[in-house]
Amino acid sequence: MTFSALDSALLGPLFASAEMRYVFSDEARLEAMLRVEQALARAEAEHGIAPAGLADAIGAITPRQFDIAALGEKTALAGVPTIPFVAALQKLLPEDLRGYVHKGATTQDIVDTALVLQLRDAFALLQADLFALIDGLKALGLHHAETPCAGRTLGQQATPVTFGFKVAVWLTGIANAASALPALKERVLKASLGGPVGTLASLGEKGPAIAETFARELGLQPAPIAWHAIRSPMAETGAWLVILLGALAKMADDVIFLSSTEVGEVAEPHIPGRGGSSAMPHKRNPVSSIVILAAQAAAKAHVVTLFDAMISAQERSPGRWQAEWLALPQLFGLASGALREAASLAKGLEVYPQRMMKNLNITGGLLFAEAAAARLSAKLGRIEAHALIEEAARQVRDTGKSLQAVLKEPAFVERMQGMPVDEAFDLKPFVDTAAFWVRTAIEATESADALRRGGGNGV
Amino acid sequence: MTFSALDSALLGPLFASAEMRYVFSDEARLEAMLRVEQALARAEAEHGIAPAGLADAIGAITPRQFDIAALGEKTALAGVPTIPFVAALQKLLPEDLRGYVHKGATTQDIVDTALVLQLRDAFALLQADLFALIDGLKALGLHHAETPCAGRTLGQQATPVTFGFKVAVWLTGIANAASALPALKERVLKASLGGPVGTLASLGEKGPAIAETFARELGLQPAPIAWHAIRSPMAETGAWLVILLGALAKMADDVIFLSSTEVGEVAEPHIPGRGGSSAMPHKRNPVSSIVILAAQAAAKAHVVTLFDAMISAQERSPGRWQAEWLALPQLFGLASGALREAASLAKGLEVYPQRMMKNLNITGGLLFAEAAAARLSAKLGRIEAHALIEEAARQVRDTGKSLQAVLKEPAFVERMQGMPVDEAFDLKPFVDTAAFWVRTAIEATESADALRRGGGNGV
Amino acid sequence: MTFSALDSALLGPLFASAEMRYVFSDEARLEAMLRVEQALARAEAEHGIAPAGLADAIGAITPRQFDIAALGEKTALAGVPTIPFVAALQKLLPEDLRGYVHKGATTQDIVDTALVLQLRDAFALLQADLFALIDGLKALGLHHAETPCAGRTLGQQATPVTFGFKVAVWLTGIANAASALPALKERVLKASLGGPVGTLASLGEKGPAIAETFARELGLQPAPIAWHAIRSPMAETGAWLVILLGALAKMADDVIFLSSTEVGEVAEPHIPGRGGSSAMPHKRNPVSSIVILAAQAAAKAHVVTLFDAMISAQERSPGRWQAEWLALPQLFGLASGALREAASLAKGLEVYPQRMMKNLNITGGLLFAEAAAARLSAKLGRIEAHALIEEAARQVRDTGKSLQAVLKEPAFVERMQGMPVDEAFDLKPFVDTAAFWVRTAIEATESADALRRGGGNGV
Amino acid sequence: MTFSALDSALLGPLFASAEMRYVFSDEARLEAMLRVEQALARAEAEHGIAPAGLADAIGAITPRQFDIAALGEKTALAGVPTIPFVAALQKLLPEDLRGYVHKGATTQDIVDTALVLQLRDAFALLQADLFALIDGLKALGLHHAETPCAGRTLGQQATPVTFGFKVAVWLTGIANAASALPALKERVLKASLGGPVGTLASLGEKGPAIAETFARELGLQPAPIAWHAIRSPMAETGAWLVILLGALAKMADDVIFLSSTEVGEVAEPHIPGRGGSSAMPHKRNPVSSIVILAAQAAAKAHVVTLFDAMISAQERSPGRWQAEWLALPQLFGLASGALREAASLAKGLEVYPQRMMKNLNITGGLLFAEAAAARLSAKLGRIEAHALIEEAARQVRDTGKSLQAVLKEPAFVERMQGMPVDEAFDLKPFVDTAAFWVRTAIEATESADALRRGGGNGV
Repeated sequence: MTFSALDSALLGPLFASAEMRYVFSDEARLEAMLRVEQALARAEAEHGIAPAGLADAIGAITPRQFDIAALGEKTALAGVPTIPFVAALQKLLPEDLRGYVHKGATTQDIVDTALVLQLRDAFALLQADLFALIDGLKALGLHHAETPCAGRTLGQQATPVTFGFKVAVWLTGIANAASALPALKERVLKASLGGPVGTLASLGEKGPAIAETFARELGLQPAPIAWHAIRSPMAETGAWLVILLGALAKMADDVIFLSSTEVGEVAEPHIPGRGGSSAMPHKRNPVSSIVILAAQAAAKAHVVTLFDAMISAQERSPGRWQAEWLALPQLFGLASGALREAASLAKGLEVYPQRMMKNLNITGGLLFAEAAAARLSAKLGRIEAHALIEEAARQVRDTGKSLQAVLKEPAFVERMQGMPVDEAFDLKPFVDTAAFWVRTAIEATESADALRRGGGNGV
Repeated sequence: MTFSALDSALLGPLFASAEMRYVFSDEARLEAMLRVEQALARAEAEHGIAPAGLADAIGAITPRQFDIAALGEKTALAGVPTIPFVAALQKLLPEDLRGYVHKGATTQDIVDTALVLQLRDAFALLQADLFALIDGLKALGLHHAETPCAGRTLGQQATPVTFGFKVAVWLTGIANAASALPALKERVLKASLGGPVGTLASLGEKGPAIAETFARELGLQPAPIAWHAIRSPMAETGAWLVILLGALAKMADDVIFLSSTEVGEVAEPHIPGRGGSSAMPHKRNPVSSIVILAAQAAAKAHVVTLFDAMISAQERSPGRWQAEWLALPQLFGLASGALREAASLAKGLEVYPQRMMKNLNITGGLLFAEAAAARLSAKLGRIEAHALIEEAARQVRDTGKSLQAVLKEPAFVERMQGMPVDEAFDLKPFVDTAAFWVRTAIEATESADALRRGGGNGV
Repeated sequence: MTFSALDSALLGPLFASAEMRYVFSDEARLEAMLRVEQALARAEAEHGIAPAGLADAIGAITPRQFDIAALGEKTALAGVPTIPFVAALQKLLPEDLRGYVHKGATTQDIVDTALVLQLRDAFALLQADLFALIDGLKALGLHHAETPCAGRTLGQQATPVTFGFKVAVWLTGIANAASALPALKERVLKASLGGPVGTLASLGEKGPAIAETFARELGLQPAPIAWHAIRSPMAETGAWLVILLGALAKMADDVIFLSSTEVGEVAEPHIPGRGGSSAMPHKRNPVSSIVILAAQAAAKAHVVTLFDAMISAQERSPGRWQAEWLALPQLFGLASGALREAASLAKGLEVYPQRMMKNLNITGGLLFAEAAAARLSAKLGRIEAHALIEEAARQVRDTGKSLQAVLKEPAFVERMQGMPVDEAFDLKPFVDTAAFWVRTAIEATESADALRRGGGNGV
Repeated sequence: MTFSALDSALLGPLFASAEMRYVFSDEARLEAMLRVEQALARAEAEHGIAPAGLADAIGAITPRQFDIAALGEKTALAGVPTIPFVAALQKLLPEDLRGYVHKGATTQDIVDTALVLQLRDAFALLQADLFALIDGLKALGLHHAETPCAGRTLGQQATPVTFGFKVAVWLTGIANAASALPALKERVLKASLGGPVGTLASLGEKGPAIAETFARELGLQPAPIAWHAIRSPMAETGAWLVILLGALAKMADDVIFLSSTEVGEVAEPHIPGRGGSSAMPHKRNPVSSIVILAAQAAAKAHVVTLFDAMISAQERSPGRWQAEWLALPQLFGLASGALREAASLAKGLEVYPQRMMKNLNITGGLLFAEAAAARLSAKLGRIEAHALIEEAARQVRDTGKSLQAVLKEPAFVERMQGMPVDEAFDLKPFVDTAAFWVRTAIEATESADALRRGGGNGV
């Protein structure tokens, strides 16, 4: 049953990775809830208020022992999954242990901490894919650091760059997002144990110590105060994922334009069976880029839901908290598919330098107009130089001659006061400066990256 | 596997109705795709370009004959579900018919028309629930047309209304949304058959006639031009659903405040097992209102995705169209659950007139301050009257006396120039005017409603 | 002072029309508030509760008599503009009339009704521009109904269409939006007069009649119940504007691609001084399309604010209502600029049929692959036909030969069982079907249009 | 002229601080553009490609020397403000210097760097307000660390907390946002100097050095690669502002509920003339909270525009970049007003401990139900204990007796096996645990805060 294409057996594999699909499966959710109750039992046993055997008894139970459909029906009645879950869990335990399960905790503690455990797995998957993607883009950028290519602004050819420069721009955007991940995880991966209103009052003086043990058991940080009604970590997570997707979508959007029939400078990797058309046997559709753009388009709006969830009324919010369940996991699903496709692009993008060179020539040299104007400025002043080039450009468009040829016509030679402009049509300076920035960008990425890959054991 | 809580076996039943869950199940989607291919076959047979037996042969096939997981894997490769679906469908047909399947159509024709069939079922479910809800609110509003209740603006008690007046406001908002449904369905329930780029060129001169027969076969309208790249009907559908949810959420938000412990004027219907707390056995949480607010909170943002899908590049959009699959069905899921809960509220809301009366008295008569000022204005002028009442109100807050008592103190009597104000504290005029508007609003709803329920045969 | 670029003296003229800028100026807002108080005075005089001269006295006052900056400071203190406005208005009136101003009304009545008056003017401006735009697109579409052009799906050339077909798709999307305007105006152009909580209790039995006269005075509809807390008309207005902008943005997005240096099939109208680059004298940037895309990008999100404003707590919302003031007018500003630019595009778009023809040829005939496959299907069956064409297409890409040439090679001729395919490469059937749909779409538009332009006197 | 209420002379002062209004005024924008051109001139002079006197000559020019309305008209034509600005600037310079202005730069360099200068001022304003707010909340939280107050979840009273605990939750949310500001500024406060396509090719080998000097002149960081098409810093800024507003709105939403007539536990600070009603002289509306909620409601959606702007096509985006101008500054305006009001709340909120105590008693002791159940669990087991308390709670609701009284009735005493429950009704443990978390939260805030206030010289 699938309201979200992500959850569809038919469409889901296109949009999310199998690993991420597992992380957010009902089974994984139940597994996480079990681990949370187990950690609570262990913490409470350590502090003498639960029997020693409870944690192990819970640990022996698996999600498959639950009738999920029945839990679902009871959740629809109760309004929260925890009540039927705890009742079902109790039935699976020896009678003498049942009364100690879930002691002092509230629904939100279990649901939020279980979610954090899922997020930890989800972040790990994304992080691995991010590393692979970044490595792929570095290699691609370096390889084409000096491959000339038209620079395009506002939809029009402007002046030359290199293909590696484009890749370095993609890389920098993606690496920026990646570099924010460690700090984000530190803020998000916190256990929740506050009891009904966050003070853990029912555990009395032992409350704070139990909360700390509980967090440690799960490899999470304890919170300085219950975050039942402090939802910024979830909002930040959503914003980060959409910013990541924005960086990927920048690449995808460029690839779609560059691989259009008329531009033809790149093509998505050739994978047999991929990108076909049901009606047009010759087509190779840019499926990877499509998946990435669709992910960004569907993801961005979920963040508004998460922003609003911060307005968490009083000690627990009626409605906005529950909306997180509808929004947050989808963002991870969308990111997983988009990252998978982006990595595939980075690794296998087909690049056609000859077509790039051909496109550089279709304007009859107008790409060099700015360079010519800049050179002329030194002698004629900026204003006169621009006016002259603008007029020459008009003749290029009207006559089909090249700019270089037009500028050699007597009328222009005279106005240029004999100043030579041939050098303005040399690609080398464009290539050199572009390649310089490719190297600078990759270095900047690497220094952040070293920090990142080395840093953080476990978190 | 569930990225959206709607699709979860554990949480989904809380948020969506079982009927709507079926409408958007993978099975129903395949069923709809089969019906579309069948209608295409029938239309092409009628116009002599497909064998007569094809449609029936397709009609005999059921979704269960497909290996959905395998289709999903192939969809992830191909980028669209139609290619593997058509291939699998062909395998289920006699060899001599296989070549005629899907003739002249494109992926988008099948996916869009199948979606429209699902939307038709989804609209029908919502419409039935809307009728029930509106009937429930009319009865509730009439019943309490004269039940006095505090009016509250900007979070503060203002002047008296009746509870029926509040219900009439809810009703009007919801009825407004309902009245827009017939015209919306007319715009949305259109078949799509345009072939690769929308012109149906491969069917030649017969194209338009086949498109018309195809639409008629499915009980849909034909489109005046292919809507592959005209996505406003989907955007309008999303906007309508969120506006409907907004009208429901207005009610839910009011119910949550009115049922808060301190206000206590209403309570959600008592349903055994509903609204309990895992930690606090005495609580009755407003689950219906929570579901409605969560639905609105999660839904609103999807509309942005649908708005953007309108920017459908050239003859078919790479990315934005696919994002519709991620956004649109969820809106119906959220609406289904919210409507179910709203109907439950309208039918069973517990209303406590005594508590309403008690709350009307807690300000010591300040609710009547505006009425008193209005009466005094006639004699003192509006400015002096307001100043006098403002001063009296201050004394009410400072001394705990009632406004009526303060105004009878000599200092005020003198300033009021002997004008009596007792009548300003009479509830009756407030109740009468409120009841008048309840009747007016219900009448307005009914005239629109008559039109609506009578109108539209089938659509 | 400009937080929104729309309001900037420097940037605003780029994004909004001068007429719309006036409609939402502070001066126009004050003017509207004056007209509302005047109508209230007239209605109350007609029903005997205000002096006959008050309305005329208010009518003689102009916005320039107010110190707007001083009002602004007092609004920041009071929290609403009406309190200082009414106080300032009273000071401008003869003493004996002052006490009767604003009688029975509440802040929201004045602010909402004044807004509706502004919206009426704003709708009228948009409607006129929409007519001009639609007329322009009809002419453009008809003119190029038979101008061959590549159809492109998912970023790739697919099969041929005509340029008029593209225009007809733009037109249909825009005309769809236009056709919804009359019904929208009917729902939105309602007066608000409900007093503090919506019942107009302080006017007693005369309330409803005064409300009706008040509305009539302003040329507006009366509301069946106060809409202080029923905000769907504002949400619908926002959604409609963004759907309109989406339809315009579809056109702009297509124009940007089609006018890119490599595609070059259209260019924005040449207007001296427009679209230049500060650095590149030769460039002609697609300014109109940029303005339209920026408008849609900035507009879409405001609708979420308006959707949320529907959850209007109790009898008046603390916060969400006020957010409408920040969101709604901007949508009209953005629409005004986008429509102006769209009309300019429709009227003056430069179209290059020769370049279209050239682009149709760059794939070596692959655009005709689907047609060839369709023809072969009749003999070979759909599956074999597709396989054959796919193989031929591969040879086209590998060898640079045309598809037609490849299919004439012996190996293919044999597999095709002698079936001729030359006819598949004929543009005529593509042009004919495309032209058919252009005419159908324009007719559909016209029937809706006739209704629309004829219908509605005044509203 | 005001499409955004922020820019209105009438409404703007309510929503934005005067200081922030100046930062984003047209005058300040021109001033920033002048400083950017001046810095460029100085950097180019230092590297020998501009005359030494140019920078000082530009430095002597003030915004008032420009005819902003004329620039606006020309911007509407040109599509960007830089072209007419540079032309007008040249006219204000001695003729021999004119040709050197803006050398090598592109429109986006000037607009983006000027924006960054405005953002630097805007951040500084917000930071100062944040410090004041945090200090106010710490004092408020400590003062009421032990003031008992009902904890409320899902709209219902749950178990007791203290008012200081609520404040500590507000504080933690806001301090979380504050702690992210230094790192954010580091990512945002970067100069832009890339020339037409980002490579600064027209400055040749000197480009990188000039870019570095240019940044240093302005006190900004240089970028490792041009960020013309890397817009994550703007998206992050928007997300941060909305997260900050979410944390403020959490407080405002709580204040509105707590200050409602029926709850009455707090009131917004009394400021003469504030919060009055045009119709109801006695009302004191929560204006500060309203401004904060409106700000969040209007702000959140702008972030979607900024997220989309990341998909910056090729080397400069047609449309999405320009949309930033419409979205980003408003976020600062909204934040400035909301922070001002939040600081006012933190400093002057009126707190009524007696009313809090009164509200703690209205459920007849049901707030202690969880504590009673917890105590009974030790002896009866959790399940039986909950069942018993649930039954007693029902009797409380049915009979109006207190929970403590009901539990002393023989039937219950027997079922409780003589276990005493009086201690469960003691407020002290609730107060003690709440106060513990208040201190913990403030400490956590302070350690982050020390770092923050000390850290970052200049940035």
